[in-house]
Amino acid sequence: MKLGIGNTTEPLPQIVIEGLHEGVRKLGFVETYTGYGDEQGDKRLREALVEYYKGMFVNLDPSEVFVSDGAKPDSANIQSIFGLENIIAVQDPAYPVYLDTNVIAGRSGKFDEEKKTYRGIVYMPCAENNDFFPDVPSKKVDLIYLCSPNNPTGAVATKHQLRKFVDYAREKKAVIIFDAAYSAFIWDPGLPRSIYEVENAKECAIEINSFSKYAGFTGVRLGWTVVPKNLVVEGAEPGKVNSLWNRRQCTFFNGASNIAQEGGLFALTEQGQKECQRLVDYYMKNARIIRDGVESIGLKAFGGINAPYIWMKTPNSMRSWEFFDKLLNEAHVVGTPGSGFGPSGEGYFRLSAFGHREDIEKALDSMKRNLKL
Amino acid sequence: MKLGIGNTTEPLPQIVIEGLHEGVRKLGFVETYTGYGDEQGDKRLREALVEYYKGMFVNLDPSEVFVSDGAKPDSANIQSIFGLENIIAVQDPAYPVYLDTNVIAGRSGKFDEEKKTYRGIVYMPCAENNDFFPDVPSKKVDLIYLCSPNNPTGAVATKHQLRKFVDYAREKKAVIIFDAAYSAFIWDPGLPRSIYEVENAKECAIEINSFSKYAGFTGVRLGWTVVPKNLVVEGAEPGKVNSLWNRRQCTFFNGASNIAQEGGLFALTEQGQKECQRLVDYYMKNARIIRDGVESIGLKAFGGINAPYIWMKTPNSMRSWEFFDKLLNEAHVVGTPGSGFGPSGEGYFRLSAFGHREDIEKALDSMKRNLKL
Repeated sequence: MKLGIGNTTEPLPQIVIEGLHEGVRKLGFVETYTGYGDEQGDKRLREALVEYYKGMFVNLDPSEVFVSDGAKPDSANIQSIFGLENIIAVQDPAYPVYLDTNVIAGRSGKFDEEKKTYRGIVYMPCAENNDFFPDVPSKKVDLIYLCSPNNPTGAVATKHQLRKFVDYAREKKAVIIFDAAYSAFIWDPGLPRSIYEVENAKECAIEINSFSKYAGFTGVRLGWTVVPKNLVVEGAEPGKVNSLWNRRQCTFFNGASNIAQEGGLFALTEQGQKECQRLVDYYMKNARIIRDGVESIGLKAFGGINAPYIWMKTPNSMRSWEFFDKLLNEAHVVGTPGSGFGPSGEGYFRLSAFGHREDIEKALDSMKRNLKL
Repeated sequence: MKLGIGNTTEPLPQIVIEGLHEGVRKLGFVETYTGYGDEQGDKRLREALVEYYKGMFVNLDPSEVFVSDGAKPDSANIQSIFGLENIIAVQDPAYPVYLDTNVIAGRSGKFDEEKKTYRGIVYMPCAENNDFFPDVPSKKVDLIYLCSPNNPTGAVATKHQLRKFVDYAREKKAVIIFDAAYSAFIWDPGLPRSIYEVENAKECAIEINSFSKYAGFTGVRLGWTVVPKNLVVEGAEPGKVNSLWNRRQCTFFNGASNIAQEGGLFALTEQGQKECQRLVDYYMKNARIIRDGVESIGLKAFGGINAPYIWMKTPNSMRSWEFFDKLLNEAHVVGTPGSGFGPSGEGYFRLSAFGHREDIEKALDSMKRNLKL
């Protein structure tokens, strides 16, 4: 039984299916056929995303929104427009792509076998003592990756927490790369779904988001990145980062699939948002079942309230992989060892709410009956 | 009237439309829904591509085929798995992505304003005197970009010409990056559609291809890259490049759209290939009309026989942009100045066969009536 993968399992909302069919249908007639579109995305979709942000009282211009084939490629490629001398800060634990791509690019320095960290990277530990959200770095860094709701901890940054980073970034001329791929899972209206809900964040933050979890598009491939025009970086005029990303996308990318974009448009309609919300609610109910379940057997759990991930402390200070074996052998349940997300993930374990309800219930039931604690 | 853009204009073959609808339909039911797939592509599609190559008497393993969102991203990203010290050779003129991505990566050296070339790049001029296909470089290079059928010249390399490059690459431990995106336009059975039709090419060549022009997928986004397991590079064991590309794709990419892949599968069926061939034939007839048309008014034209591009010599040794203005002002036709593809493109002009028949005919008619030669 799998509680390990961050992969959607439920069919797409009906209106999104209709949108995708519409996208296909258009390709069958000479009057509506389209070939290469703008690398930055269909104008209608960029405008629909601008409208979507208005719902959070965030004003953007369509030229600040870049449609892509998903949040993973964007999180991976965004570093490529910054110089190799930039100092990178990552949350620890974190989604591995931020670190891996900087290692490949050559910004990490050597690996310290003992500490399990790269010497050139600034790690921002996220643990119980800081509610799994870090304080700003004590030294000057240039690029800061933040993910909220967080993968893997399920923690969601408050406006206050984000404001500290925005203030830091503006003062130090650093850039925040804000991964909001799980923002649709925030139901608490007091928590920010976009970093731009924080004043002046447009001067220092790039935001990456996706239709993957919101609309079930993990396989369909559609995401977007916001690069504000008035983003300021050291030694460059405002607008420079926006134009660099535009240049990067135009040279290395040829636009998201026109079918996926048509589906995305339908997902952003009023009806589409309603149906997608039901999909999100389904996974959130799963999350609740998992969190309640693991707590009911005396395990300590975090996240899973405004995020689809439950971050569990392993019992008796077991190492993550030890618990992986125990969970697999005793309860026949697969999860993800926290240590895979960074050194501060050691002793933790990620359970994912993506799955069919009956499978989730079966897994929890097996954990309750079979796990020897 | 536009003869400038390499963008498809005709609706997709019916069977491909059905395949795409099938891809969408599957996402609407829990039994057939799929989320993230393999970064390397759907196994069925990789196997179908292996079958496709068998038609050219080329044997590949599915693990050597990497499905992607198109030939452009692959041509752009392939350089990233090679060290920055590698010397790059490009055909001149060439599709700008090969050069641009190497400039961005930092392999080009300084730009020579006078020669209009980068000092660190080896240019292989393609002109009338070599039938628009270059001889092997006289010095040692590491990465060689070849495109056949060629964009922009429309020239197709013979087996003999490719064999010289394969021999050179094997001797010098260089890697050929072979862009075969227009291979479907080769009707002459004597010309190779894949570089692997040349003996031993798997030891030295990566091949990039696409459904864009073959099946009209410019907007749908689907392509593939072949990285043979026994490709040999200097200082690395066989299999290393395959595993590096695999690592690169798994870190920076999340697979092509599952809808597009389903469409690709249908395009590779027997019926699919037949219908796609009709689409290709349509554009090839356009190419013939363009080539015959420009020749009938006394202009010298190349390509357009086994390729969708016609490479025209400008009249009276005009510069490419001069002729652009003349063609636009006198005949109201837009084409692409050859100088945009490299210094050896100066004095040439690219006309594209992608367009509706009636628009192509109108453009040629206007050229015949209005161009003052």
